[in-house]
Amino acid sequence: MFISEGAARKLLKEAGAKRVSKEAASEFQKHINRYAFDVGQKAVKLAEHAKRKTVTDSDIKLAAY
Amino acid sequence: MFISEGAARKLLKEAGAKRVSKEAASEFQKHINRYAFDVGQKAVKLAEHAKRKTVTDSDIKLAAY
Repeated sequence: MFISEGAARKLLKEAGAKRVSKEAASEFQKHINRYAFDVGQKAVKLAEHAKRKTVTDSDIKLAAY
Repeated sequence: MFISEGAARKLLKEAGAKRVSKEAASEFQKHINRYAFDVGQKAVKLAEHAKRKTVTDSDIKLAAY
């Protein structure tokens, strides 16, 4: 996993959460990991599509928005 | 920052990137951090809306999809 459950819990606290259930931290962790991997894979495909071996910031921008 | 630039670069490699530019790693890091914070804040607002002090997995699911 890219992001730990502890890091996910910490971010929720920073976003204003008074308390965070164990299941919420786990669900948040899973969601962010899945999302990040999906955007990452899309960026890799965009670089391949442009016949590049290097993923550039333009690939990230196009994948993310 | 929730996620380091190094972690962002590592995830892009795991997603299949042969090479990753410095700017791509930085842009990816920024995007994931921003996204995670936005979802986190939305989950906190949903818990408050439901008059709860504890963020639960139902808040995360509703915020994320």
